[in-house]
This record gives sequence, structure tokens and C-alpha cells, in this order.
Amino acid sequence: MDLELIRNLIIPNTTKLVLLSLDGLGGLPHPNTGKSELETARIPTLHALAARSACGLLRHVGPGITPGSGPGHLGLFGYDPLKYQVGRGVLEALGIDFELRAGDVAARGNLCTVDREGRITDRRAGRIATDLCVSLCQRLRAIRFPGVKLFVEPVKEHRFVLILRGAGLSGRLSESDPQSLGVPALPVKALAPAAKRTAALVNRFVAAARKALAGEAPANMILLRGFDQLPRLPSFPKTFGLKAAAIAAYPMYRGLARLVGMEVLKTGATFADEVATLRQHREAYDFFFLHYKDTDKAGEDGDFAGKVAALERLDGFIPQILSLKPDVLAVTGDHASPAVLKGHGWQPVPLLLWSAYCGADPVTEFTERACAAGSLGVLAAQELMPLILANGLRLTKFGA
Amino acid sequence: MDLELIRNLIIPNTTKLVLLSLDGLGGLPHPNTGKSELETARIPTLHALAARSACGLLRHVGPGITPGSGPGHLGLFGYDPLKYQVGRGVLEALGIDFELRAGDVAARGNLCTVDREGRITDRRAGRIATDLCVSLCQRLRAIRFPGVKLFVEPVKEHRFVLILRGAGLSGRLSESDPQSLGVPALPVKALAPAAKRTAALVNRFVAAARKALAGEAPANMILLRGFDQLPRLPSFPKTFGLKAAAIAAYPMYRGLARLVGMEVLKTGATFADEVATLRQHREAYDFFFLHYKDTDKAGEDGDFAGKVAALERLDGFIPQILSLKPDVLAVTGDHASPAVLKGHGWQPVPLLLWSAYCGADPVTEFTERACAAGSLGVLAAQELMPLILANGLRLTKFGA
Repeated sequence: MDLELIRNLIIPNTTKLVLLSLDGLGGLPHPNTGKSELETARIPTLHALAARSACGLLRHVGPGITPGSGPGHLGLFGYDPLKYQVGRGVLEALGIDFELRAGDVAARGNLCTVDREGRITDRRAGRIATDLCVSLCQRLRAIRFPGVKLFVEPVKEHRFVLILRGAGLSGRLSESDPQSLGVPALPVKALAPAAKRTAALVNRFVAAARKALAGEAPANMILLRGFDQLPRLPSFPKTFGLKAAAIAAYPMYRGLARLVGMEVLKTGATFADEVATLRQHREAYDFFFLHYKDTDKAGEDGDFAGKVAALERLDGFIPQILSLKPDVLAVTGDHASPAVLKGHGWQPVPLLLWSAYCGADPVTEFTERACAAGSLGVLAAQELMPLILANGLRLTKFGA
Repeated sequence: MDLELIRNLIIPNTTKLVLLSLDGLGGLPHPNTGKSELETARIPTLHALAARSACGLLRHVGPGITPGSGPGHLGLFGYDPLKYQVGRGVLEALGIDFELRAGDVAARGNLCTVDREGRITDRRAGRIATDLCVSLCQRLRAIRFPGVKLFVEPVKEHRFVLILRGAGLSGRLSESDPQSLGVPALPVKALAPAAKRTAALVNRFVAAARKALAGEAPANMILLRGFDQLPRLPSFPKTFGLKAAAIAAYPMYRGLARLVGMEVLKTGATFADEVATLRQHREAYDFFFLHYKDTDKAGEDGDFAGKVAALERLDGFIPQILSLKPDVLAVTGDHASPAVLKGHGWQPVPLLLWSAYCGADPVTEFTERACAAGSLGVLAAQELMPLILANGLRLTKFGA
């Protein structure tokens, strides 16, 4: 569905819409029990809500495609993730709450180990402690060039983000990380004529970094990849006619919401804090994106019981959310994180959509298996926003 | 699915295909009973037929998008409603059985009230009686310009249709209706250079109409919108290799069928008349589009019991239709009209497809909930025609 089409159908209303994203929601059956995390968890409130909702499965990119967090959330926000892509460097910057500006070029960096001839012997410098990364980034900040502002921001262990800010920069650059050992780092090349100057700046920075880190083995060199600039995304508030707020304890999701123009509300570190923030701002916005991280963390750790527990904790919050009387509540996720896969999965993700007009379907449980029989069928993630809007009576008829 | 692809797969056969469109078929549960109109109605024949059919849900434009009657029927006829759009003026002309010709420009008109300064005080002139509209349209017919033929056709209450016929006209015009009060009607502007002359003609007509209606308060001015020309649609009979007939008591649906090149059969005002017309012409055509209006009327009026009754009346006609031994019978609708919404809805619409080769599925009831579990899944409306053709053994293999 074209965003322009949706935009032309928007009509004003005062309905309140809530999109609750349970990160990494979808799972797979445990080999011993044959039951998935959702099928194992005691989640009576979600099951009861599913029985009153229209259900289905959400697919974020395509059959068999495992979405990263960027495409996963862009889909939920109504954007075709194949059309609108966010580079690795930009995502890393969003993930540390760095406020990227239009035109900034961001890259994901690794501190790495090279031998005397400059050949890479460890792409992650033995996963050095984060503290060491912080102090080495501090040292790299001493590198300065005229006409461009450089930011070197530590992330975790060997990871950092490099941001270049200035006029006329381009992210159309090849990577310096050869992704193999025994070879030197690659010079960064311009992939478009407009990127020549940026490529030269980056190569100067890499040379200066090597010099600055020379005595710091194992972290005596850097590798850069995923150069990109902020993508131009249609504004979520303008496209969907919504005053929209994001409530997320984790910076990456705040960043993704900011990327599409949502207001990011200040909240605490727990989901209880997030729900309190929702209550506090209930009147001030039309749309809330509410993010729950625990499901994904347990899934990525391969912690089946932990994911079950995370689902059960979340279930306990649903009555509080319902007590705020949203007109539309959608509960789904940005991708699957089955514990048996210990990471993101390609499986479609359960979806429930509740409103006074959602219609009935035979689904009475919020599980992968049950939602497959729902009236929403298997939907592309970007088709959810139009459905949320329709259920909020915020879309007029198409054609006479 | 591309129409050209279908056209290339057509093979001749003598099978009889019937597409029965129950206008506004889809519904929503009644808040008191939790059952939809279809779930409430006693429709044993439709349920029994569903049990012998392949079932599913039909979506006409996209998730969350509420189809107008134009897109709803174009989808049923096999046309992607996003690709082929029909303007408001054209639909209004079709709705009064006006035989639009290629090149005609049609607009929807309102008789309205303006104050002395020409500011709109009532966009609908107090919904004047249809009789008065007829006589005022008669007066507007006196307006004549050289080189163009004007038609002013009354519709109902304050509504009329303006049609311009002549060489070199264009429907790329802005609307004169500002859709708000306290401001004057807007001059019509050309949205493309080729529309300049048409814009000037329309503005002259509006000025002349204002003069002609000056003493006729409340209906002392006109507003025009939805200018359009007949769209160029691939021929239904040629694309699908079918001698096709439309049987519809209501003019709008006859008009839509005529638009795609079906023959419109003369019939009476009731569905019994329509079924009699089907019986009478059974041998002369390959394909019949049969339209039932009562379901939509009750749904749009918010009359849940009325819609239930309309479904029960329709159920009584199914044996007569089956006695004519169609090889394929599809029963579905052009959009939902849930009584609780008092208008068109975005919900997908139940579909049953019966033939000797339709295949079995677990569905035994013709309801929204039951059809969600059907073997046809959730289909785009324009995918129904290829399925009807296949079940009529009228499509050959794709590829060797």
C-alpha cells in the first residue's frame, strides 16, 4: 500500500491508538515439549484479549527473511522495509542515543588487532573490556581535521561509532573491514563521485588512528563498515495524521522512532516505567509506540524459560494498558527471536488487533499456531498501520 | 496478477459462471450478542453451499482501506482498483443510467445556498425535495454554449450530474466545492494545460447557473466536484474470453458492468426479477454478474435486523440459482457494510467458490469467522476472476 494513498485518506478523529511491540515476540516449539514460548507461558490476559481481537501473523520483509531491528520496526511503523533502508552505522548511532543530523555520515567501528605488517589477526581485538574501549575512543577524539567535525563514540567491548559532520559529505563509501584475517584493512573507496572527499577524510582518519593506537595492542587498529547517512523517510505524523509518541527504555528503538518523526517521551528503565509514561501522556498524543525488550533479550540468549517469564511479566501489564481505554490496541513484535535459534528468526510474528470494530475470528489464544487461523491472515508488517488507523476510524473511503 | 497474463491463458469452454455479489456483505458482531449479521441470520442454504465450496475472505483494496462501490466492483470484475480508478462524476452518471461516452466529462453537482456576497451557507440547500431538483435542473438545461453539449441530470434531493460532451474536453479540473461554509465557491482550475478550455466552459456554466437560480433560495447556486472522464479499462469479455452479462436492479452497478464491457440485461426492480432474468438468459451467456443490493442498504442504515432479514431472503433464492446448474458459482460482496458502522467498512468479505473442482476445506458456515479458515485464504478481490475461470476449466497451464 502506497503511503501517499494512505495520506490522502486520513480523516481527523480523537481516537487513541496504541502499538505495543514485544521485541522478538515470535518463537518456536521447545524440542522437549513441542510448545513454543507463547504456548508455554501463562498469559491469560493476552489469550482473553486475543479472543476479543482480530488476529493474524505479521511478516516483516518476506518469507524466509530474518529482519534486523531496523527493518522490523520500520515495517511496524508502516514503511516498506525494502524501500526504506537504514544503514548499519546509522543504526549503531541511534543505538547509543546519538542525535544524528541530516548529512552526518555514520559508520560502525571495531577496534582490532594487526601485526607489524598491518595484517589483521583479530577483528575484535579479543573483545576488549568496554572501559578500555571508552579510553581508546577518548584518544581517537584527539584526531581533528579542518572542515569536518568528528565524533568517536564507544559502544560496548570493541565496538564504537564514527560520525563525520560537515557540509558535502556522502555515505556512499566501501568498507575498510575485509571481514577476514591475515590481510590488511582495505582503503575506503568512494562509491559515487560525490563521496571522494569523504573517502579521503576517512582514510586520513584511519591512518591517524593507527598511529595513535600503535602501542595499544591488542587494540592497535580500527575497522570501519556500514557507512551511511540518515535516510529520508516520510514523516510518520504527517503521513498518518497522528500526534505520535514513542515510549522505549532502549535507545535503538527511541532512535528508530525519532527517525520517522515521532516524539520520544522521557521514560525509565523498566516496562513499569514505560506504562507509567503512557498513563501520564495519555491525553497529549493520538498514537503511542510502546516497546518491550525483555522477550528479545531472552530469545537471543537462547533462554527459553527466560522468554516464557518475560511473556508472563508482560501479560501482567496488559490490564493497566487496557485501563487507559485505548480505542485501538495492537500487540505484536518486530521479528521472531526463537530461543532455539538464539537470535532473530524469519518466522512470522503473532498479531492481535483490538478495537470496537475489529471483527470476530476463531482465535482464542495469542500463540503462533492459533494466530495462523486469524481473520487478518498473514500480513506484511507495513499493512498494520492502515489497519490500526481504520480501526480508529481515521481513514475515509477509497473511491466513490 | 497481470490481466495480460490471464488473457494469454484463456481457453474456450461452454461452462457457465455466476458471480453473485451481495452488496456490503461483510459485517461485524452485534455488541449484545457477539454475532455478526451472517452469524445471526438463518441461512441454511448458504451454509450448506459453503460446506461444499472453497471458502476465504476477499480484500478489495488493501488492509484497512474501505472501498467505495467503484473500487469494490472493479476488484470483483478482476481489475486492480488501485490501477483503474473511476472518478466520482463518472460514478454518479453511471448511477442514473446515463450512457457516458468516451471523452465526456462528468461532475457531481450539489444545489447549494449562498448569501448575497456569494458565501456558501448550506452545501446541500437544506436537502431540497427531489421534485424541486428536477425542475431546477430543467432550468439549468437552458444554459447553452457553442461547441459543447451540456447535460444537467437530477439525481436525488440536492444532487445532480453535469456532463459536458464535445471534442477536446478534459476532466483534469479542480473542484468548485470548497467543502466548507462562509466562503464562496472556488473557480474551477485546469490541472493540466489540455484542460484550460474545459475549465473556462465550466466556469461560464457556473456563472450562468448562479444567474439562473438567483431567486431560488435555498437552492440558489451550484457546487461541482469529482470531474472525470470514462477510464480506459481493458474489455472484460476480451480479457477473460467470456460473453458476459450483468443483472442488477440498481443503475450504479449496471453502469460499472457496462464500463468494463459487459452486456447489461433488462431486469426488474426486485431480486426475484433478477433471478428470472438469469433463468431466461442462461443459455445465451458464459458469465453472469448478479447483484443483490438489500444487504448494503440495511448495513448503511445501521439496521442490523434488516441486514439479517436481507441475508435470509437472499438465502431463499440460492436453490433457484443452483437449479440453473451453473458450473461455477461465487458468492461474495463488493465491500463490508457492518450495521454497527452504518456505512462501508474495511473488513475483508466472506467468499465461497463452488464448482466440481473447487476442492474441500474445513469451512461449513458462510460467515466472516468461518471463512477466515478457508482454503482460499485472504485474497485480493482481483484474484477472484482467475479462480472463477480456472474452476470453469477456462484457463490453460502457465509454462510448459
